[in-house]
Amino acid sequence: MHKPLIAPSILSADFAKLGEEVDSVLSAGADIVHFDVMDNHYVPNLTFGPTICSALRNYGITADIDVHLMVSPVDSMIEAFAKAGASMISFHPEAALHVDRSIELIKQHGCKAGLVLNPATSLSVLDYVLEKLDYVLLMSVNPGFGGQKFIPGTVEKTAHLKSIIDEMGLSTRIQVDGGINKDTIKDVYLAGADMFVAGSAIFGQRDYKKAIADLTQQFK
Amino acid sequence: MHKPLIAPSILSADFAKLGEEVDSVLSAGADIVHFDVMDNHYVPNLTFGPTICSALRNYGITADIDVHLMVSPVDSMIEAFAKAGASMISFHPEAALHVDRSIELIKQHGCKAGLVLNPATSLSVLDYVLEKLDYVLLMSVNPGFGGQKFIPGTVEKTAHLKSIIDEMGLSTRIQVDGGINKDTIKDVYLAGADMFVAGSAIFGQRDYKKAIADLTQQFK
Amino acid sequence: MHKPLIAPSILSADFAKLGEEVDSVLSAGADIVHFDVMDNHYVPNLTFGPTICSALRNYGITADIDVHLMVSPVDSMIEAFAKAGASMISFHPEAALHVDRSIELIKQHGCKAGLVLNPATSLSVLDYVLEKLDYVLLMSVNPGFGGQKFIPGTVEKTAHLKSIIDEMGLSTRIQVDGGINKDTIKDVYLAGADMFVAGSAIFGQRDYKKAIADLTQQFK
Amino acid sequence: MHKPLIAPSILSADFAKLGEEVDSVLSAGADIVHFDVMDNHYVPNLTFGPTICSALRNYGITADIDVHLMVSPVDSMIEAFAKAGASMISFHPEAALHVDRSIELIKQHGCKAGLVLNPATSLSVLDYVLEKLDYVLLMSVNPGFGGQKFIPGTVEKTAHLKSIIDEMGLSTRIQVDGGINKDTIKDVYLAGADMFVAGSAIFGQRDYKKAIADLTQQFK
Amino acid sequence: MHKPLIAPSILSADFAKLGEEVDSVLSAGADIVHFDVMDNHYVPNLTFGPTICSALRNYGITADIDVHLMVSPVDSMIEAFAKAGASMISFHPEAALHVDRSIELIKQHGCKAGLVLNPATSLSVLDYVLEKLDYVLLMSVNPGFGGQKFIPGTVEKTAHLKSIIDEMGLSTRIQVDGGINKDTIKDVYLAGADMFVAGSAIFGQRDYKKAIADLTQQFK
Amino acid sequence: MHKPLIAPSILSADFAKLGEEVDSVLSAGADIVHFDVMDNHYVPNLTFGPTICSALRNYGITADIDVHLMVSPVDSMIEAFAKAGASMISFHPEAALHVDRSIELIKQHGCKAGLVLNPATSLSVLDYVLEKLDYVLLMSVNPGFGGQKFIPGTVEKTAHLKSIIDEMGLSTRIQVDGGINKDTIKDVYLAGADMFVAGSAIFGQRDYKKAIADLTQQFK
Repeated sequence: MHKPLIAPSILSADFAKLGEEVDSVLSAGADIVHFDVMDNHYVPNLTFGPTICSALRNYGITADIDVHLMVSPVDSMIEAFAKAGASMISFHPEAALHVDRSIELIKQHGCKAGLVLNPATSLSVLDYVLEKLDYVLLMSVNPGFGGQKFIPGTVEKTAHLKSIIDEMGLSTRIQVDGGINKDTIKDVYLAGADMFVAGSAIFGQRDYKKAIADLTQQFK
Repeated sequence: MHKPLIAPSILSADFAKLGEEVDSVLSAGADIVHFDVMDNHYVPNLTFGPTICSALRNYGITADIDVHLMVSPVDSMIEAFAKAGASMISFHPEAALHVDRSIELIKQHGCKAGLVLNPATSLSVLDYVLEKLDYVLLMSVNPGFGGQKFIPGTVEKTAHLKSIIDEMGLSTRIQVDGGINKDTIKDVYLAGADMFVAGSAIFGQRDYKKAIADLTQQFK
Repeated sequence: MHKPLIAPSILSADFAKLGEEVDSVLSAGADIVHFDVMDNHYVPNLTFGPTICSALRNYGITADIDVHLMVSPVDSMIEAFAKAGASMISFHPEAALHVDRSIELIKQHGCKAGLVLNPATSLSVLDYVLEKLDYVLLMSVNPGFGGQKFIPGTVEKTAHLKSIIDEMGLSTRIQVDGGINKDTIKDVYLAGADMFVAGSAIFGQRDYKKAIADLTQQFK
Repeated sequence: MHKPLIAPSILSADFAKLGEEVDSVLSAGADIVHFDVMDNHYVPNLTFGPTICSALRNYGITADIDVHLMVSPVDSMIEAFAKAGASMISFHPEAALHVDRSIELIKQHGCKAGLVLNPATSLSVLDYVLEKLDYVLLMSVNPGFGGQKFIPGTVEKTAHLKSIIDEMGLSTRIQVDGGINKDTIKDVYLAGADMFVAGSAIFGQRDYKKAIADLTQQFK
Repeated sequence: MHKPLIAPSILSADFAKLGEEVDSVLSAGADIVHFDVMDNHYVPNLTFGPTICSALRNYGITADIDVHLMVSPVDSMIEAFAKAGASMISFHPEAALHVDRSIELIKQHGCKAGLVLNPATSLSVLDYVLEKLDYVLLMSVNPGFGGQKFIPGTVEKTAHLKSIIDEMGLSTRIQVDGGINKDTIKDVYLAGADMFVAGSAIFGQRDYKKAIADLTQQFK
Repeated sequence: MHKPLIAPSILSADFAKLGEEVDSVLSAGADIVHFDVMDNHYVPNLTFGPTICSALRNYGITADIDVHLMVSPVDSMIEAFAKAGASMISFHPEAALHVDRSIELIKQHGCKAGLVLNPATSLSVLDYVLEKLDYVLLMSVNPGFGGQKFIPGTVEKTAHLKSIIDEMGLSTRIQVDGGINKDTIKDVYLAGADMFVAGSAIFGQRDYKKAIADLTQQFK
């Protein structure tokens, strides 16, 4: 069983002093740094690209950088983020024409590969690629839209995916993103998720250490 | 005649400490802050969106923020950047279906409006909108591609545009972007440009004050 | 068990006197008014938009208006039709990037939400949204193309969907559209469908009352 | 010199009794029937397609039907409207890849052909096709967006186009659409326009005869 | 049980003397001629279109021509290849909006119809169309990209599809394409495939007869 | 003044024995080999890609290969054809977002660069790039559609372009394509064109030598 990991989304950090923010959150106990990359085409918002990734690497951040691509198409961004220092890259199968090929591309660059499933997306998209994936990201809100709450059905979906992973004897991680806070994290953790993206639940708090502890103590 | 303005492009700044960088460059004499917004569709690169703009405003930056949209379509980004604190917004006519309407949209939000012309774009795109524009940005490289040099034909194009503006009795500013440094700035200045975007020529230098002075002394 | 509903598609009505046509068909026993909205992008035809919906509301039509969106993207049309007086809105999952979000959008506007499955579309698209839907529309022809016959496989697909709905203890309605007439309606009714869209089988007849009776007596 | 023609846009008519509306407005003195066809892609709105055109022909309307295509691409809609009984078809050059070919297509179907210029579009798009056109539509608002006022620059643009037409010895008509009412019609008429699209200025009035007379008396 | 068929892909042939090449490979024992049609949109490469098909028919080739469309959209190419003499046409469901309709279109032209599944595509796309298909093409590499090896998971996928076909009592053929050579052909053959596309394993060899025999003797 | 060149379009050649065809037509006096590359997106037809170019080079063709790209986007095809042995590459400005950059890309690969103007395209697209071009291709039919005749207005357009080239002191060649035969070639030659694409007027004839002579004697 995997150690559960906390992945703060820098989208909620202060971009005027991003290096310091990321340093702080890692010192406060965060495990990996989560990037929400939006291109205003796959989702109705534009956030940031590979430049921010290399800036953090140059600043000295050595933790894993986990890039969630909410862009379409995906291949050129996979290459750009891999070169900019990403450790893990995930994308939406609906956003790519050649899913198997894009997974291979991530791996060829030495990164861990994930697929992201929207709330309405069937697990059947994993039928012939699950074995190749390092992780699956289950969205618990619709990506790219503001002001959404955790979709409760995600818990059952996590459990379903976990049972498939176990049956196949795989060690694929399950990441959950959207509305994760101390009230929602426990159920998805118990259902089998082991990577948790949190935005305002961490960066929106005054004390990052306390905010992360509030999350991790739900694992006990 | 307008006072010539220096507009450092933050694309060349250190994104790990962006607030500090922008503060420094403004203290060093820069006039406005230039944003190169790319969406990986209109140009083959993804840079950053409105979040970075509001982060700088929250940080306390009060200088004009000048947003060059290299995105398509443009209207939702116009609205998002206006809300995030932009002062000036420009876009490419090829990237918009309804150019006059997008110009109106910028103005309705209280921002100054500009059109951007690619190196190959004819001045005829300005025929029926020049009077409505606060500035025209003439690209002196092809936007979104790295490692390009200043295209010399921009000088003549600037002169041509300047003569049209003068004939019409307008006070439209001319901005130039691409390969601007102390060797190229003088000719476009003399041809009529009065806003100069510079990236590595400023942020790529150790001493921002000297870098900006190197540029502005060409105006004498 | 739901009362079976007859939904005449106004695409077959006389658009020169649409108010009168819809009045007549409702007086003749029709339950709801069906709109086939095509945008010449998702399907190769352009029919009509929200203006026609508000015109019928202004005319005094109070029956449910059931809007089948054959458009892509869907969100702006959802909002426009909701404002124009629609009661029910359905869309194709292939035509939307964020299916769960579009379903929520329909509901936020107080309308009933449906998903439409093309003849070749797998029921697996319903895996994580069926519980949120008020109805599912199974297409028994390919939408947007003329001169097609009822696809017989729809009967088995209806039965399959009905068994899933029953197993989950839901009360989701099943709508069928395409080639519905007195010869085809009985089989899909028996398989579990309870909303029936008919175009020429109603508006193509001289006597709407008789035409509707010809359909409804198949339910006995 | 052409007789000036009044072209009421049915977009402002009552779609519940369209045949009657069109009859009334023609009896009241309107010359041709104007269709604003929008596909929610070239413009952010969906209005209506060829079905409405054939419905009016079947109803007995014999006046010229003038179709303004705000759609992209254009060729399939040209064919569909020609078959549905259109007399005149115009389209936007930005919406077509092969402008000369689409003009030929309109003519092959026996319809009159027009090009539509958005407020910001340069007259240079007419350089090599003006001789083939029966009319040019100059937009005096941005098409597809609500609540806009007549753009005053249209008067000068009309005059400019008229002078080109006269210099070339052509008899091309100039149509103007957007914000046309008794206050704006005179200036564009004097500048050379001879077809005037009006929506709410006609259908928004109680007395169509008076509304049309209010417009036409400006020609004296 | 079907006789296994060898389908050389002309993409590996010498296009300077294509008629002669195809003649040779058919004389050497090939069963059908395979076309890899790419449009630089569905896949990142442009190969050839219907002209090459009619050229081979005019040259006197009478063997079945089997067209694999790696294009999007598909319908106009289906019609063009059917007219150019194709015998079998397959397409990717992701590349078509109306899969059932495109299958019907192939059949209306008297050709055999196939669907192509990318390595990552779930068999669930076949749920409601398998009965209408003459064959299913399972890609054993990602189409349109060079230098790829046979993906081993294809063997299990073939077996899975074969068991579904058998359970339903169908006689649908299974075609496999990508990295097929004498080392890989046996496993997919034993799993149930009965049409084998080979490119360099045939046209890349000096002796076509020997190359084909090397493949077919694996069936014993 | 340039020697006028005859450029047979291989689209009209026999693709079953293309090497032989091209050999014959060059022996018969043709100067360069013209490729009509269509992708079924920029034009409604799919012809052939870089593979055919390298096949001809491998066959031993050493004449200039002149590639007319009727594709969108253009950059990846520019690179692919340059690698496949093209000598000259032209594209449509409407099909490229960054025209100046694509011209540079052609030149960086050591090829001659051309822009193609559709019949309706204004010469204003050349305003800031004419000096960088080796040739301009004026289309005398609409590309990608069959059965069209030479558009007479091309003669005047050629003369206009020629006068601009002369005024600027350039040596840019003018190529004309579409409906060129012994009846139409003289007028455009006299107007200033010096490269002539011909399809059926050469490959559609029994005797290529005579066919080419029929064209070239019009220059006298």
